[in-house]
Amino acid sequence: MRKVKVTFEPSGQTVEVPCATTLLEAATAAGVLLSAPCGGAGRCGKCRVLPRSGELSPPSTAEIERLQPENLQAGLRLACQTEVRSEAAIEVPAASMLVSPAIAEEGQAERYSFGPAVRAQPVTMPPPSLADQRSDLERLFTAAGCSPNLAVPLPVLQAIPRVLREGRFSATLVWVEDHLVRVLPGTEAPPLLGAAFDIGTTTVVGALYDLATGKELAVQSRLNPQAVHGADVLSRLTFAEQENGLDLLHKEIVACISEIIAGLLRDAGRAKEDLYEVVAVGNQVMTHALLKVPPEAIGRSPFAPVFRTAVTVPLAEMSLPGWLLGRLYVVPGVAGYVGADIVAGLVATRLCNVPRPQLFIDLGTNGEVVLCKDGELYACAAAAGPAFEGAQIACGMRATAGAVDYVKINDGVELSTIAQAPPLGLCGSGLLDATAELVRHGIVSLAGRFRGNTETASLPASLAERLRSGEQPYFLLAGGDDGSRVVLTQSDVRQLQLAKGAVRAAGEVLMARAGVALADLSRVVLAGAFGSFLNKDSALAVGLLPPMDRAKVQSVGNVARAGAGLILISQEARQAALTVARQVQYVELSSSAEFQEAFVKAMAFPPLGDDGD
Amino acid sequence: MRKVKVTFEPSGQTVEVPCATTLLEAATAAGVLLSAPCGGAGRCGKCRVLPRSGELSPPSTAEIERLQPENLQAGLRLACQTEVRSEAAIEVPAASMLVSPAIAEEGQAERYSFGPAVRAQPVTMPPPSLADQRSDLERLFTAAGCSPNLAVPLPVLQAIPRVLREGRFSATLVWVEDHLVRVLPGTEAPPLLGAAFDIGTTTVVGALYDLATGKELAVQSRLNPQAVHGADVLSRLTFAEQENGLDLLHKEIVACISEIIAGLLRDAGRAKEDLYEVVAVGNQVMTHALLKVPPEAIGRSPFAPVFRTAVTVPLAEMSLPGWLLGRLYVVPGVAGYVGADIVAGLVATRLCNVPRPQLFIDLGTNGEVVLCKDGELYACAAAAGPAFEGAQIACGMRATAGAVDYVKINDGVELSTIAQAPPLGLCGSGLLDATAELVRHGIVSLAGRFRGNTETASLPASLAERLRSGEQPYFLLAGGDDGSRVVLTQSDVRQLQLAKGAVRAAGEVLMARAGVALADLSRVVLAGAFGSFLNKDSALAVGLLPPMDRAKVQSVGNVARAGAGLILISQEARQAALTVARQVQYVELSSSAEFQEAFVKAMAFPPLGDDGD
Repeated sequence: MRKVKVTFEPSGQTVEVPCATTLLEAATAAGVLLSAPCGGAGRCGKCRVLPRSGELSPPSTAEIERLQPENLQAGLRLACQTEVRSEAAIEVPAASMLVSPAIAEEGQAERYSFGPAVRAQPVTMPPPSLADQRSDLERLFTAAGCSPNLAVPLPVLQAIPRVLREGRFSATLVWVEDHLVRVLPGTEAPPLLGAAFDIGTTTVVGALYDLATGKELAVQSRLNPQAVHGADVLSRLTFAEQENGLDLLHKEIVACISEIIAGLLRDAGRAKEDLYEVVAVGNQVMTHALLKVPPEAIGRSPFAPVFRTAVTVPLAEMSLPGWLLGRLYVVPGVAGYVGADIVAGLVATRLCNVPRPQLFIDLGTNGEVVLCKDGELYACAAAAGPAFEGAQIACGMRATAGAVDYVKINDGVELSTIAQAPPLGLCGSGLLDATAELVRHGIVSLAGRFRGNTETASLPASLAERLRSGEQPYFLLAGGDDGSRVVLTQSDVRQLQLAKGAVRAAGEVLMARAGVALADLSRVVLAGAFGSFLNKDSALAVGLLPPMDRAKVQSVGNVARAGAGLILISQEARQAALTVARQVQYVELSSSAEFQEAFVKAMAFPPLGDDGD
Repeated sequence: MRKVKVTFEPSGQTVEVPCATTLLEAATAAGVLLSAPCGGAGRCGKCRVLPRSGELSPPSTAEIERLQPENLQAGLRLACQTEVRSEAAIEVPAASMLVSPAIAEEGQAERYSFGPAVRAQPVTMPPPSLADQRSDLERLFTAAGCSPNLAVPLPVLQAIPRVLREGRFSATLVWVEDHLVRVLPGTEAPPLLGAAFDIGTTTVVGALYDLATGKELAVQSRLNPQAVHGADVLSRLTFAEQENGLDLLHKEIVACISEIIAGLLRDAGRAKEDLYEVVAVGNQVMTHALLKVPPEAIGRSPFAPVFRTAVTVPLAEMSLPGWLLGRLYVVPGVAGYVGADIVAGLVATRLCNVPRPQLFIDLGTNGEVVLCKDGELYACAAAAGPAFEGAQIACGMRATAGAVDYVKINDGVELSTIAQAPPLGLCGSGLLDATAELVRHGIVSLAGRFRGNTETASLPASLAERLRSGEQPYFLLAGGDDGSRVVLTQSDVRQLQLAKGAVRAAGEVLMARAGVALADLSRVVLAGAFGSFLNKDSALAVGLLPPMDRAKVQSVGNVARAGAGLILISQEARQAALTVARQVQYVELSSSAEFQEAFVKAMAFPPLGDDGD
C-alpha cells in the first residue's frame, strides 16, 4: 500500500498516511486537531482547510453543498471529505482548529468559550495621601474589587510596595483561578503563558500556549523516562512499592516535564517567568506518581485511588519551571483505571453531552471504554493486556520504524512498514490486520485456532507454504529463513483474542447497563495513538468493535492532549472536566459475572461478512 | 520607699513592688494577667486570689460584699482590693486568669469563649470495597463533612494512603482555621500546641500554650536582636532602607522567635511537630520586618503601611520551627503607627466595647492613644520621643538594675532603684517622679524652667545645695562629686515636657474628635511595661494624664502579649481583633493644627493641686 506524506501549516506537523486517507484522519494522526462536531460526516462544514500542493480527491456533494461557490473557487475544502492522493501541503485556518482562539466566537455552542484560568487585571488607584492613609494592599484590593480577606502569598505582599511605586499606582494583577500570583508595575498587558501535558505511560507530550490569544506556540514530546522500570502501569505500580521507588518515578517525570517546558520556551523564544499554569492529564498511576502520592492501592482490589478530584499545587513546590507562584493543575479522574486522560478526551470530543449514544474507546494495556448517552456517562476499564502495544507477541514491537502496520493477504502478502523501513516486527495495527486476514482466508478458525494442513488444502500454494509449524503453528508474513522473519503465531492470535475480547465485552456490559442497543449507537470514537492508526475494517473484522457501519467509526487521535489544552485555555472546558469526572458512573468489571460471560463470547471472531445490520 | 517581693503561684512569676501596692497591680507588673472586667473597682469579683503567706491589708467593704463569708473564711481575696505589706506568696486560681481555660465557661459575656483556630477532628470511615471504590480523599472528606473542593496541601495528600491504612480507616484531621494541615492515624486526641508572641522594638516575649486546654505552658523573653541597629522604630526604618538591611532585620527577628520557640518547647518538654500555630503582634515596623515586607513608606508622609489586614503564612515558608504546614498568624494593625500590638491590647482589655468612654495609652517612643466610646474607637500616635525609655536624658537608662525608678523629695531626696542596686541612672518612672517633685517644690517652674538661686531662696539648704549649674542648670539626685552622680538637667525636663505634652495632646484631640468631655472619662488604661511601673501621682502631677481621680487610672501591663494569647486560644477574640482593626478611626496628627495647638499648651506643667473636678 502506497503511503504519502502530508504536511500541515502553519504548525509544520507532518504525517505519513496510506494513500486515499481523508485529510481529517491525516490531520488527526499528525496531532493537528480539527474541529469536526458532526464527526466527519460532512454536515457541519467546520473542518475547512486550504490545500497548497498535492493531488486530492475532487469535491464531494457534501462540500459543494456546504461551501459557497466562492470558497470552493478559492480552493477551500472540507478535510473530512477530501482524500489525499500524493504528498501534500495543507494550510489549516485557525478557525478550523479544535483548540484555537476561534473557540471564543459567540453562539458556537459546540465549542468551548475562550477564557483561561490565568488572566491579567490592570488597575489604577489613587496614591496615598494624608487624607487617604490606607495600606498599599487595601488600595490595590479596592481598585481590583477583591475581597479584603483574600489571602496574599508572601512573595506578592513583599513586592507590592515597590511595584505600586514603580508603576505610579498603576499595576497589573495576574490571577490563576482565584489565586493572586503576581503584581506587575503599570497596566501594559503582560505576556501570559501556559502549558498542557499528556503524561502517557510511554510518551509525554507538552504544548505551550499563549494565554492572551489561545494560540499554540510549540509542541514537544519525549519518552516517559519511567519506562525503564516497565512498559505498562502495572509494572510502574510494582516499582512504586520498592524502597525509594515512588520517589524515583516522581523525580523522573518531573525532570521530563521540566525538560519539555524548557524546550518549549526555547522553541517559542519565551521567558520562564511568564509561565503561570501547567495543566496535566494522564492515567491515575501517572498523576499519582507526578504528585508523589503512593499509588499502590490502585494495584490491588478494590483498586481505589488516593484522589480523583482536581489537585492544584504551586509550580515551585513541584520543582517545575515557571513563575514561582504559578500553579500545576492536575485534571480529575474517575476511578483507579479511568484517569484524567479519559476525562480530557471526553471534554475534547464533547462526548459528555451528545444527544445519541456513542462509545468512546481508548485502546492500550487497559482499554478504557465510556458509553455516553444523553448526558449520562458509564465507564469501565478492561484489562486488555499489552498485545495492542506489541508486547507478548512473538514478533511484536512498538509502532516505530520497521514495524509492519498494514497487512493485506490475497494470493501473496502485501504489507507496509512505518517509515518504509525493512520489516522488523508487528505493531498493534499490523497484528490486527494480519489476524483479520488469516481469519478471512480460513487459515485461523473463528475460535482462533490455526487450521492444520489438511483443513487448508484449498489455499493457494503461495499462502500454504507460509503456514508452518514449530512448537506451535505460525504464519510467515515477511522475511526468509535467515532469522529476519516476521511471523504471526498461534499464541499471538490468542493474545489478540484476549485483548479484543476484553474491550468488546466491556462495551457490551456498558451498553447493557445503560440500556443501549447496538443499533442505537451513532458513533464509536477511537482515541489515542493506536486508535488513530488501526485499520477500521480489520477492527470490525476481528470483532474488536461491534458489527456496525464503518462510517460510524471515527479516530480522533490524542484527544487527551487536546483536552488538556482546552482545560488550559477555557474555564468552560475546565468546568466540563469537573462535571464529567463527577458524573461518570464507573462500572467495575473485575468481579462482574456479566463481563466474564461477555468476555468468553467476545473471544471468538465474528462470522465473515457480519457487518451489523 | 520600701519594696516587697511578691511571688505568684503556680507560675512562680515574681515582682518587686512598692509597699502598699495592690495585688492586682503587682500581678500585672509580674506579667500575671488577672481577669478584672470592672477595671479594679471591686465590683465584678473576678480577680480572686488565695494568699499563702505575707502581710496584707484587711478585707475591704467591697470584698465583704462580693465574697461569700465561707470564701472569706477560706482566705480568698480580691486582688484589686488587697494591698501587699510584706514579702508575700499568692496563689492564682486558673479561673481568675485573663487567659485561661476558664474563659470557656458559658454566660460570662465579658470573657472570650475558648476555641482555638487549631483543632483536631476525629473521623471514622468505611474501608474501600468493590461496592465503594471512592478515593481515599473523598472517603476522608465525606467522613469529615468537608467540601469536596477543599484544597489539600501536597504533603497531606501524600500521607493520606499510609495514614488511613495505619489507622484502619480511623483518622484525625488537624485544622488551622480552614486549612487542613495534617492527618494522623487513629482517633486518639493528638497534642496541639500554639505560641503567642509580642514582638517589641526592645523585647520579644513568647508563650507556649496547650491548645487542647488553653493552658499556658511556658514563657520566655529575649532582647530583640534588631536593637543593635537602633533603639527605636525610626532607626529600624532607616536601617531597612540600607542594602540588605531589611533582609538582615528579617533574619534577626526570625532567628529570635525560633530560639524562643525552641526554648519554650524545651521548657515544656514538648515536640516541635505538635506546634501548629504562632500568633504574632507588634508595631507595624516589627510585623513588616517579620514578613520581610519593605516598611519604608511608614517612615515618610503619608505614613501608609503596606498591609494592615491579618496575614497568614505557613511556618515552613517563614523558616520557623513547628509542624511543616503549621501557620503564622500576624494580627492586623490600624495604621502606620498603630499596630497589631495595640489591637491585641484593645482585645485583651475588652476596651473595644465598653459602655462609658475610656482612654487607652501605650507609652513608648510613640505614644499610641485610643479613645473608646460606646463601640466607637479613635486612635492616634504621638511622636513622644525616647524620653520615657531613658534615651536622650543626661543620666537616662533602661529599666534595669540600678535604674532609679522612684523619687520622693521632702527635706532630702528619697529614692529607690531596681533590684536595690546602687543608683546608676534614671529610667522613665524615675524621670517622671523627679520632674514632678521638682515642680512641686517650685525648683522647676510650670513652664518647665529651672529657677535660679534667687528664685529658690526659700528652699531648705539640703535641697538648695543640690541645685547646681554647669552648661545648664541641673539637680543632683544621688551620688557625690566622684562622677557616679545621678542628675536631672534642664534639657531632661524639656525632653519630658515634649514626651508628655505629645501624649496628653493626642488624648485631647481624640476627645475633641469624639465629643467626649474629661468628666465623661470613666477610666484611663496604661498599657505596656512603662505604664505598669510609673507612679500615677507623678503622671497626674506633670500632666501626662488629664487631671482626674487617681483611682480611674489603671495599669494593665503587657496586654499586647495577653491579647496575642487570647487570639491564639479563642476564635472569638480573633474575630474581635479583626473587627477592632477595621473599626478604629485613625486620626493623623502630623498635619493637624488642632494637635499642634494642644501640644504647645500641654507642654506646661499643671498648677499644683489641680486634680480635675
